Amino acid sequence: MPLAHEPSTAHATDAAYAPTERTVPTRARERAGYDRALVHAILDEAYVCHLGFVRDGAPVVLPTLYGRVGDRLYVHGSTGSRPLRAAGRQDPGLAVCLTVTHVDGLVLARSAFHHSVNYRSVVVHGTAYQVVDEDEKRMALDALTDHVVPGRAADSRPANAKELAATAVLRLDLAEVSAKLRTGGPNDEPEDAGLPHWTGVVPVRRGYGTPVPADDLAEGIELPAYLREPAC
Amino acid sequence: MPLAHEPSTAHATDAAYAPTERTVPTRARERAGYDRALVHAILDEAYVCHLGFVRDGAPVVLPTLYGRVGDRLYVHGSTGSRPLRAAGRQDPGLAVCLTVTHVDGLVLARSAFHHSVNYRSVVVHGTAYQVVDEDEKRMALDALTDHVVPGRAADSRPANAKELAATAVLRLDLAEVSAKLRTGGPNDEPEDAGLPHWTGVVPVRRGYGTPVPADDLAEGIELPAYLREPAC
Repeated sequence: MPLAHEPSTAHATDAAYAPTERTVPTRARERAGYDRALVHAILDEAYVCHLGFVRDGAPVVLPTLYGRVGDRLYVHGSTGSRPLRAAGRQDPGLAVCLTVTHVDGLVLARSAFHHSVNYRSVVVHGTAYQVVDEDEKRMALDALTDHVVPGRAADSRPANAKELAATAVLRLDLAEVSAKLRTGGPNDEPEDAGLPHWTGVVPVRRGYGTPVPADDLAEGIELPAYLREPAC
Repeated sequence: MPLAHEPSTAHATDAAYAPTERTVPTRARERAGYDRALVHAILDEAYVCHLGFVRDGAPVVLPTLYGRVGDRLYVHGSTGSRPLRAAGRQDPGLAVCLTVTHVDGLVLARSAFHHSVNYRSVVVHGTAYQVVDEDEKRMALDALTDHVVPGRAADSRPANAKELAATAVLRLDLAEVSAKLRTGGPNDEPEDAGLPHWTGVVPVRRGYGTPVPADDLAEGIELPAYLREPAC
């Protein structure tokens, strides 16, 4: 993973995003990365992000679903929702920060100070614009659905004109973006080695339970293959 | 769960937080709640929040650990980190939005439009202040540790003076706060009932794997009782 010790001389390549002043952390820089494949992998493993924007000068952070198509992220919502209304139609867009976080483990050190969490996160800074092109909007909504359940978009009724009109979609380009991650075990002070506390990592697991059919699911409609993952 | 259809006449009670203009959603108001026990339960089940603040006019959203003590939340970080530096020492504090989200299920409707997610979230608006009182700081750090792993604070070496000085703690009062949640199955349009798509809910599970001892864990130190939960 490329590191960014010299952001002023860095530049974007096919393999990595260019670090900027606000994507270079003020501390723990060795945990930051700009590798495109790493960023995409972290984004693709989750489907809920936390979207921040400024309203009346104050920050607002709301959880929302997202999808990725290449170097673009899409979020959607009711045309009446606050961020979607704020983003308006194209100009000037909405300054946002979109953050995705996976927690992979709890790191229990002998000292309280060195307790930590293993995680992988992506922070995207940028301006979100409402998607006005209908084809792009449909493509984005399919991407959103397939991001949550791969294969589902083709196995559901597409939005009709009324539903499409009631849905707003925001596009956010992946340009000013960084990943940050911590892996591995505790980093205790050498002088604490003899303390009697258990030390190690508790893995955090995510998974799915057995799908629960809706009460009115017609007989004969079987669970689709894309939902037949092993349960957690 | 009390609803807030008339926020202008609502007021805080022991049982509920008072709705405000920015804690009443513009849509899906029936999903919003202000019940204190509900808010606390959602906060206590998670330990990672997404903290939003404004820097140079733009939103920033960072994942961070938190703890709760009554109607106060605490987050911590290096004294050199951006939000902690921005919060300064007491005055004027830092305007923040702290959001916690649990995803409980994927809701697969017959129509793409009615796909949804079952979730429980809490959004806290307010001003975060640096904790300067050393006793409160120690108490907050213990609460943070015990929030992630209940019982762990007493089973680790407390921070020494140097570590305490390197750690900044922010306090955020729970006052302007709301919960939002969705539960239940898909809400398809009646005319879609005959469509051949599987419909229902895929439960989302969270859990822990088997704890992995650090390489240098001394023989004879057994896994503490507070970590002997059933694995996921």
